[in-house]
Amino acid sequence: MNFDVVDLIRTKRDGGRLSDAEIDWVIDAYTTGGVADYQMSALAMAILLRGMDRAEIARWTAAMIASGERMDFSSLTRPTADKHSTGGVGDKITLPLAPLVAVFDVAVPQLSGRGLGHTGGTLDKLESIPGWRADLSNDEILRQLDDVGAVICAAGSGLAPADKKLYALRDTTGTVEAIPLIASSIMSKKIAEGTGALVLDVKVGSGAFMKSLDQATELARTMVDLGKDAGVATVALLTGMDTPLGRTAGNALEVRESLEVLAGGGPADVVELTVALAREMLAAAGKPDVDPAPALRDGRAMDVWRRMIAAQGGDPDAPLPVAEHRHTVVAERGGFVSRMDAFAVGVAAWRLGAGRARKEDDVQAVAGVEMHAKPGDRVAAGQPLFTLHTATPERFDRALAALDGAVDYSDAAVEVPGLILGRLD
Amino acid sequence: MNFDVVDLIRTKRDGGRLSDAEIDWVIDAYTTGGVADYQMSALAMAILLRGMDRAEIARWTAAMIASGERMDFSSLTRPTADKHSTGGVGDKITLPLAPLVAVFDVAVPQLSGRGLGHTGGTLDKLESIPGWRADLSNDEILRQLDDVGAVICAAGSGLAPADKKLYALRDTTGTVEAIPLIASSIMSKKIAEGTGALVLDVKVGSGAFMKSLDQATELARTMVDLGKDAGVATVALLTGMDTPLGRTAGNALEVRESLEVLAGGGPADVVELTVALAREMLAAAGKPDVDPAPALRDGRAMDVWRRMIAAQGGDPDAPLPVAEHRHTVVAERGGFVSRMDAFAVGVAAWRLGAGRARKEDDVQAVAGVEMHAKPGDRVAAGQPLFTLHTATPERFDRALAALDGAVDYSDAAVEVPGLILGRLD
Repeated sequence: MNFDVVDLIRTKRDGGRLSDAEIDWVIDAYTTGGVADYQMSALAMAILLRGMDRAEIARWTAAMIASGERMDFSSLTRPTADKHSTGGVGDKITLPLAPLVAVFDVAVPQLSGRGLGHTGGTLDKLESIPGWRADLSNDEILRQLDDVGAVICAAGSGLAPADKKLYALRDTTGTVEAIPLIASSIMSKKIAEGTGALVLDVKVGSGAFMKSLDQATELARTMVDLGKDAGVATVALLTGMDTPLGRTAGNALEVRESLEVLAGGGPADVVELTVALAREMLAAAGKPDVDPAPALRDGRAMDVWRRMIAAQGGDPDAPLPVAEHRHTVVAERGGFVSRMDAFAVGVAAWRLGAGRARKEDDVQAVAGVEMHAKPGDRVAAGQPLFTLHTATPERFDRALAALDGAVDYSDAAVEVPGLILGRLD
Repeated sequence: MNFDVVDLIRTKRDGGRLSDAEIDWVIDAYTTGGVADYQMSALAMAILLRGMDRAEIARWTAAMIASGERMDFSSLTRPTADKHSTGGVGDKITLPLAPLVAVFDVAVPQLSGRGLGHTGGTLDKLESIPGWRADLSNDEILRQLDDVGAVICAAGSGLAPADKKLYALRDTTGTVEAIPLIASSIMSKKIAEGTGALVLDVKVGSGAFMKSLDQATELARTMVDLGKDAGVATVALLTGMDTPLGRTAGNALEVRESLEVLAGGGPADVVELTVALAREMLAAAGKPDVDPAPALRDGRAMDVWRRMIAAQGGDPDAPLPVAEHRHTVVAERGGFVSRMDAFAVGVAAWRLGAGRARKEDDVQAVAGVEMHAKPGDRVAAGQPLFTLHTATPERFDRALAALDGAVDYSDAAVEVPGLILGRLD
């Protein structure tokens, strides 16, 4: 069946709905070049401003899955579970989480991306480990899941190629922040990947794409419905992202913090979220009664980590790179830290070299921000608050500018809100 | 000054306004290639759905004018006046109007376009005259205005090139129907053209872009304000386009009808609108007390027409081409014609070959629709209603399909609404 793309754009522009056949056609025509970028960007803007209903989003997602290959984990003897975070500052949870879940005989195929903008990418973090490689063939992924039980690697280019093309377009046309397009982008890749269970970590706050709990709840609801409609056991946690997670934002810095967690220590918020997500993944994979927390303390999760890193060419004993240039920011006054803005810290880490402005940019393994105090902590005036790390000291000025006004203080003790704000299934 | 186009798109998407510097930058960057088509189409969709305020539209128009050259008619001894119609079915008014106004020592630089879609283009109509050419240099335009007093020709590619590029993009991205973009597109070309006075014929109805009087009034108000702000004496008439103008739609057919008007005859609605617009143009050019009607009857307008056509290589005495294939449509029943849908007649003429689907298509000089009755007329069942003309008889079927349901009848006499619905200055 053939349609006129201008008719489809007008329908959505005027608040109408697209039929199944129209959606199948436009995704296929865009992937194969019959619909131009300049037409798809106009349609994306109309979708952003007019929305799509549940059936449209489901069909859009299915059409993006159909644009490429699907992976098949049915040969594995273990159930599979994956986690996806919508992205935040200091979010290194995947690193301790994947080996932790694998301890309990649930296979974790964690196909991940690189960072863009102020939120870091899991692959960028792991690439600070000498020798580690992100690109595996489908056979290598299956073999590693069988042998080790966990793999964190790049999503192959064969999964949802329509999404790949559309995502790059949205990034340059101001059409990223559309809930139907965000939900279908994430879920098309996860469904095509073939995981049996999926736990979504939907971030809310200054450092996240979703600034309000209402928006985040709508996104979570949309994604959970898409997953369940496609036969994937899907659950979402809504978690706070007004404050960075843990005490580091940056690539090697976050690997170091993850190793602390795998060694039974680490910041309380990182441990809390790792354990909560592991519990959800295990339950969604059919193991509801397991308490994963002890496996962080007794070395079982660290053992899987070491085997997982080694299987991808990494040396788990090699020293992590360290920044040559550091700059300390001190507390302007004494009192209790009442706010530490996640967006500001993310931008500072990005400007220090931890992230990229364009897809083709390189990132620095060593760059980032270390936090010596967090909201709720009491500090004295002049006490170190941040250490900035970079290989290129000319970046300090712009990173410091990002941190201007990022911290508030209070004379009275501050109660820190809980990290987990809600759960949807 | 340099901006990030994604920031501009987001601002408009979220309902904000663009600054003067942002508008200047984005129009220049789009014209020179720094902003891509896929970015401009997303911005155009955001403008369509979010709007622009009066100052934004004025600046957008000024930036499009600044993208190219401006013509200069100051060497002429006569005042200048131009007319622009927003496009309708059977709208051949420019043909008798330009020579009629020139009779009274007002120079008429009528820079025109070709048709796209169901509305015809003035240049396509004149090109059915053997030898006539549309493309003149600026020097030729000036000389002809001096010698003859009227010129109808193609707008040079140097006028508002940003508009040319943007118009082609809007046409393929469902972003034509945005009042700020329609108004700035029309007015940037007319202001750059350098006319001293401008009369706008804003069409309302099924055969026009504007379907409601409210929309048309908003468009007219926007354009009149833009013209006056730029120092052009600008007036708008709002005129009906539920019914085709006159009794022909098609290129040579409309030239023939225009010759009837210039010979003192022709359909009453065409004569009425020609005289009303001539009166407005003369008044706007400083001659408010002239009655142009006699110059149609006494041959003075025809005389200017003949010199105008000859000056551009046309032979005013050459026979116009005639269609080899004709098909008659008869009245299904007897009674008074109560409706004859302009859009349906326009589509039928277009499908017969009078218009083009894509810019690169050729048009047939001979193709079109002749109307033997109009709303208000009494017909007997089986009496001829339309004659369809084409060089390619395989087109009859689809043209007939377009006319299906285009005519309504009434047993009682029908009062036909007036053609001129309003006036703005």
